[in-house]
Amino acid sequence: MRQILVIGLGAGDPDYVTMQAVDALNAAEVFFVVDKGEDKSSLLELREQICDRYIRDDGYRLVTIPEPPRDRRAAAYVGAVDDWHERRAELFEAAILHHLPEDGCGAFLVWGDPALYDSTLRIIDHILARGAVDFDYRVIPGITAVQALAARHRLPLNRIGEPVHITTGRRLAAGLPEDLDSAVVMLDAGFAAADLNDPDLHVYWGAYLGTPNEVLRSGPLPEVADEIAATKRELRERHGWIMDTYLVRRERRERP
Amino acid sequence: MRQILVIGLGAGDPDYVTMQAVDALNAAEVFFVVDKGEDKSSLLELREQICDRYIRDDGYRLVTIPEPPRDRRAAAYVGAVDDWHERRAELFEAAILHHLPEDGCGAFLVWGDPALYDSTLRIIDHILARGAVDFDYRVIPGITAVQALAARHRLPLNRIGEPVHITTGRRLAAGLPEDLDSAVVMLDAGFAAADLNDPDLHVYWGAYLGTPNEVLRSGPLPEVADEIAATKRELRERHGWIMDTYLVRRERRERP
Repeated sequence: MRQILVIGLGAGDPDYVTMQAVDALNAAEVFFVVDKGEDKSSLLELREQICDRYIRDDGYRLVTIPEPPRDRRAAAYVGAVDDWHERRAELFEAAILHHLPEDGCGAFLVWGDPALYDSTLRIIDHILARGAVDFDYRVIPGITAVQALAARHRLPLNRIGEPVHITTGRRLAAGLPEDLDSAVVMLDAGFAAADLNDPDLHVYWGAYLGTPNEVLRSGPLPEVADEIAATKRELRERHGWIMDTYLVRRERRERP
Repeated sequence: MRQILVIGLGAGDPDYVTMQAVDALNAAEVFFVVDKGEDKSSLLELREQICDRYIRDDGYRLVTIPEPPRDRRAAAYVGAVDDWHERRAELFEAAILHHLPEDGCGAFLVWGDPALYDSTLRIIDHILARGAVDFDYRVIPGITAVQALAARHRLPLNRIGEPVHITTGRRLAAGLPEDLDSAVVMLDAGFAAADLNDPDLHVYWGAYLGTPNEVLRSGPLPEVADEIAATKRELRERHGWIMDTYLVRRERRERP
């Protein structure tokens, strides 16, 4: 039976890689990577660094899977993402059938953790549901950008007894959820927090976390929002892409 | 200047340790550990295994800090936790002053990630605010029990475009937050999900995640709630303590 390992590499920094991920990297003979057709060359370099540093035998193969185009119209959001996963599933399935021997071990490399805002596990469900190829699979967790953000700002993600809420820029645009004093925001193309009209919010922001290009900013949201939005535009222009995340939190004394 | 490293060891399994944590373990000469006075001997054994496996020079010292008693009455919750942190800060401060040379590097070892439901960073804020000892400190993130749960159940934590909500048993008892279809629950002494009257909820549960005693259960909540609650009581009796976490999620098709 084919074995597939879904390996969380962590948030960029090769030092974020776990021992379990190192073992998994060394167990796989074929690595499937998705070519997003974007020039995120610093990420490609980091992935190469991680493979070079941790894989002891260089006899492995890298198989590139093309990324199908995606319908990004908001109205069709969930359905569009799901159809897109189905098309990705077909491509993944073909790659596995063609490149992984029946008793082979292959791996998908994922930045961060496969459980957080990553599509690989959903695509695997699609492939198995199609029934054309069978395999067993395991998931190897990795340090997420959320954890890198918290570590670099030396922040606890939760207040005492309170929840941790991780959400998207799209959802934050509607405001902080009722009854919540903080949220971690991912997948925000702009900087949705800038439109929150709340003088008590603080923001802790990080871009390219865990990479040599890492940038951190923090402060009262009304004071730093414009600077963060401008920094983000400038960084995107300089590097050709950006990946960032941030925590917004209502400041108040913990003592009642 | 004294250096303090707050090291996330991950969710128990020595394979969850990151390269950064290994480097940090080797940089520290003194490890401060809190004696909670409970017999969690399997956790102590795991911590020893991790130190033995990763620390190359065995000339390090282990300093045990006693745990002050805590006022657990619910009405006083936040205030009580805060006073308790202040008392812990005094004990930590004394341990640092007494055991860490002025140019020394010490470390606090934390299960999981220091950013998630752990008090070490808050205690450090208290110590620095007291002003009796000065030091620089860094945070090393680790794989949390939430990530171990997701990996072992091979689950994405989020649905497409939806938030991840991590909360406590105490809060879940009031029901799933409005507008949310799922929540990860930590710090639940009982099994609060059992009282949620929602036939569409599924639960993915794990105890002692990342340890040799790991137990997993999952299924429709109404069908498995009693069994999980009973398993939990039985495991707590057998091991003398329990650490568990779970995801509850409303099942529905992702395609609209």
